[in-house]
This record gives sequence, C-alpha cells and structure tokens, in this order.
Amino acid sequence: MNQKRIVETTLRVRYAETDAMGVVYHSNYLVWFEVGRGDYFRALGQDYGHWEQRGYALPVAEAHARYHAPARYGDEVAVRTWVEQVRSRSLTLGYEVVRADTRLRLVSGWTRHICMDSQGQACRLPLQMLESLGQS
Amino acid sequence: MNQKRIVETTLRVRYAETDAMGVVYHSNYLVWFEVGRGDYFRALGQDYGHWEQRGYALPVAEAHARYHAPARYGDEVAVRTWVEQVRSRSLTLGYEVVRADTRLRLVSGWTRHICMDSQGQACRLPLQMLESLGQS
Amino acid sequence: MNQKRIVETTLRVRYAETDAMGVVYHSNYLVWFEVGRGDYFRALGQDYGHWEQRGYALPVAEAHARYHAPARYGDEVAVRTWVEQVRSRSLTLGYEVVRADTRLRLVSGWTRHICMDSQGQACRLPLQMLESLGQS
Amino acid sequence: MNQKRIVETTLRVRYAETDAMGVVYHSNYLVWFEVGRGDYFRALGQDYGHWEQRGYALPVAEAHARYHAPARYGDEVAVRTWVEQVRSRSLTLGYEVVRADTRLRLVSGWTRHICMDSQGQACRLPLQMLESLGQS
Repeated sequence: MNQKRIVETTLRVRYAETDAMGVVYHSNYLVWFEVGRGDYFRALGQDYGHWEQRGYALPVAEAHARYHAPARYGDEVAVRTWVEQVRSRSLTLGYEVVRADTRLRLVSGWTRHICMDSQGQACRLPLQMLESLGQS
Repeated sequence: MNQKRIVETTLRVRYAETDAMGVVYHSNYLVWFEVGRGDYFRALGQDYGHWEQRGYALPVAEAHARYHAPARYGDEVAVRTWVEQVRSRSLTLGYEVVRADTRLRLVSGWTRHICMDSQGQACRLPLQMLESLGQS
Repeated sequence: MNQKRIVETTLRVRYAETDAMGVVYHSNYLVWFEVGRGDYFRALGQDYGHWEQRGYALPVAEAHARYHAPARYGDEVAVRTWVEQVRSRSLTLGYEVVRADTRLRLVSGWTRHICMDSQGQACRLPLQMLESLGQS
Repeated sequence: MNQKRIVETTLRVRYAETDAMGVVYHSNYLVWFEVGRGDYFRALGQDYGHWEQRGYALPVAEAHARYHAPARYGDEVAVRTWVEQVRSRSLTLGYEVVRADTRLRLVSGWTRHICMDSQGQACRLPLQMLESLGQS
C-alpha cells in the first residue's frame, strides 16, 4: 500500500452529544471514531456486523485522542479514517475529525484492536480481512 | 394544515447505541427523535441552533415512546417527524422510527416542548416559528 | 400490597449527562430509571443480571417521562422506584427523580416491560419474580 | 508530594453502558474517568462546578485508555484517580478502573487538561487550585 486509503464519514453534531460547556463532550469522539471505522470496513465490502456473525470481534485494546478545537450543536463534521498498522493479531486505525466546511482539524486519534474468536480468545485476523486491508 | 408534513431522517445504528441484549438501548430513540426534530426545523428553514442564538429554547417537557421491534448494529433506520400540535406556548412533535428497507415500525412516540426565553421563563413561541409551522 | 414499597437510589450528575443548555439531557433520565429499576430488583434479592443468565429479559415496551425542573452538573439526585402494576406477562414500574437535598421533584415517569424468554418470545413472568413482587 | 494521593470512586455498571458484545462500551470509561476526576477535586475541597462558576474550565486536551479486561452489567467497579503532572497551564490525571471485589485491573488511562478562562483563552491554573494540588 503506497498510499493510504482514507474513508470519510460526514455527520452532524447531536444536542445529546454536547455538554454544559456548550461543546461536544470529549468521549463522543470515540463513538465517532467507531462510526468512521464501520464505514471504513463497509467501504472495503467487509461489513463489521458480518464478521461478528462469523464469530469474530475486534474489541478496542487501546484508544487515544487529542482535542484541537471544539465542535458545537448542528456543526457538520467529517470523520476521516485510515489503517495505521496491520499485524497478524491486531489492527490500528487512525482518525481525524474536521469541520466539514472549513476543514479545521477538531480531533485526531487512533484505536488499536485485537482480533477475538467466538470463544473470546485472541486470534489471527481472518485472511479475507487481511486481504481486503491490502496486506496479503 | 390539511395534510401533515413529515420530514424523514436516515441514520445507521452505532455500536455505542446497542446494549447487552444485542439491540438498541431504549433511551437512544429519544436521541433519534431529537435528530429528527432538528431536521424538521432545518427543513422549515428554522435551524434550532439559530433560535438558541436569539435567546429561545424548546426544552422537552414530556416524552413518550412505544417500542414495537428492536434495531441492531448497522441497521439503517428512518426517523419520521411531524408536528402533532402547536399551542401559543408549547409544541408537540410526533415520531416514528422504521427500518429503512422494510419500513417495519420499530418505535413510535412524541415529545412536548415548552418555549423558554433567555431568562429561563416560559414564553410564547416566536411569531416566525409559528408562521413556519403553518400556524399564523 | 397495601402500601407500595419504594426503593431509593442516590446518584450524582455527571458532566457527560449535561447538554449545551447547561442541564441534564432529557434521555438520561430513562437511564436513571434503569438504575433505579436495577436497585429495586436488587432490594428484592432478585438481581436483574441473574434473571438474564436464566434466560429471561424484561425489555422496555413503553416509556414515559415528565420533566418538572432541571438538574445540573454535580447535583445529587435521588431516583425513587416502585411497582405500578404487575400482570402475568408484563410489569410497570413508576419513578420519581428528586433533588437529594431539597426533595424538589425533577422528573416523574414510568416504564412498561414485557417478559421475554431465551427464544425472544413473550412469556409469563417467572413465579419467583411474581412472588418477590408480592403478587402470588 | 512524596506519595501520590489516590481517590477512589465506586460505581455499578449500568445496562445503558453495555454494548452488543455484552460488555461495557469502551468510550464509557472516559466518562468514568470524569466521575473519578470530579471526586478527586471534591476530595480536595475544590468542587469542579465551583471553578466553573468562577469562570475557569479544564477541558480535556488529550485522553488515553488501555483496555485490559471487560466489565459487565451489574459489576461493581472502582475508579482510582491521581495527579500525574501539574504544570502552570495544564494538569494530567491518571486513572485505573478495577473490579471492586477482585481488584482485577480493567482499564488504565490518563487525561491531560488545559486551563481556560471565561474568555475561552488558555490561562494559568488558579493559585488556589495549585495549592490544593500540593504544588505551590
């Protein structure tokens, strides 16, 4: 993969996502990362829900976020998602949330996931997932 | 208003919105109603955020939901929003959440809102809002 | 049951639960109802989690809330929970959220639950649950 | 400060906090960190809400979490909070979430906060806050 593939998701800030400072409460960006991640897999034709039905899960093992500027109710934001690193048993995705209009960077971050089988044991990423991530 | 105007919002179930029963946790439908309400006002050209900037708020005074069928992670649902009743100082909106594909009804409900001014006092709905709701 | 049993849960408003109006976002009261409900069952010696392990679930079929006064970050509130009605296949609980110090009523409401077995079919409330609810 | 002060908060997992994997959704630990942080300030006699009323805010500038083991509905967990680093304009808090009974470590993490005045400008931590943090 010479050039990283970036999948972009647009969403609008919900009132429920704001807090008493008048801005989006910080933990909600992890939820938006999850939305971006779902769209990333969907763009690969690898719906995450389908992986779950086949007995695989990709729980979050580590998460990080840096907050650069706030978002407010009604703002349209874009979540940009890409793959940072693929290993045999784990996967790291990178994210950037920007204002949809000005492209001002609001938050950047990453999540590291381990692959788990239906017995809840760490396992190798399934081959078909690796292939679609451009790694086989 | 002989025929009620219905505004429809499509959204996809987030993993964060599910619970240990494997379905969308019931309080999240109130959040989806809020998303539908925001789109309803936006469709009227009456962005709710702009009303707040002018010193008005429409806090929820009462909310009701009936749960007919569950939604699951990744499902696409449509929130249908309409005005049930407009009074001088309050507003009731109705909602229906359906599966986007089969139109199966998942949840129905309503929220009643009172109008509050910048001093936090109940007040009349601003004339421009009444007009756009087809009530003047 | 001549006199209704009321179980009281105290909790403190989290910043995450507030919104840009500076008060608790309305859907969070349904979550507090759920916390009150869990404590109600626990007070009966009928942990809800144990019922799930035995294959029963009590999904919310209907929910209602009336908002009387707002709560703010750091406020201590008490959720008061009681049984409104027990039927063979459903259960209605009532709730009142008050400020812990002044006992000012903030929100009142109820939730109606149906009993579901491990196949996802509506079923009778288990006898042991009925007994502990004082209904057998 | 030769020995770090640790403030411990106990809370019970809400159904709303679980997800379709049957465990606590990962972003909720950031909310629990916030609860721990509030209790840390309260233990110092420095209620965070009071600082806000005086025009100061401590928004999250960066957050990190590592997930070691899952928590489930009804589990009692303890959030342990301490100060990692105090600088003139920022503050880093550390957290550990453990099972209340077995003390099994579930999640560890930290949040870095900047101090903001009522104009939304970065500012020095107020002297009284520094003092109570043992830094003056």
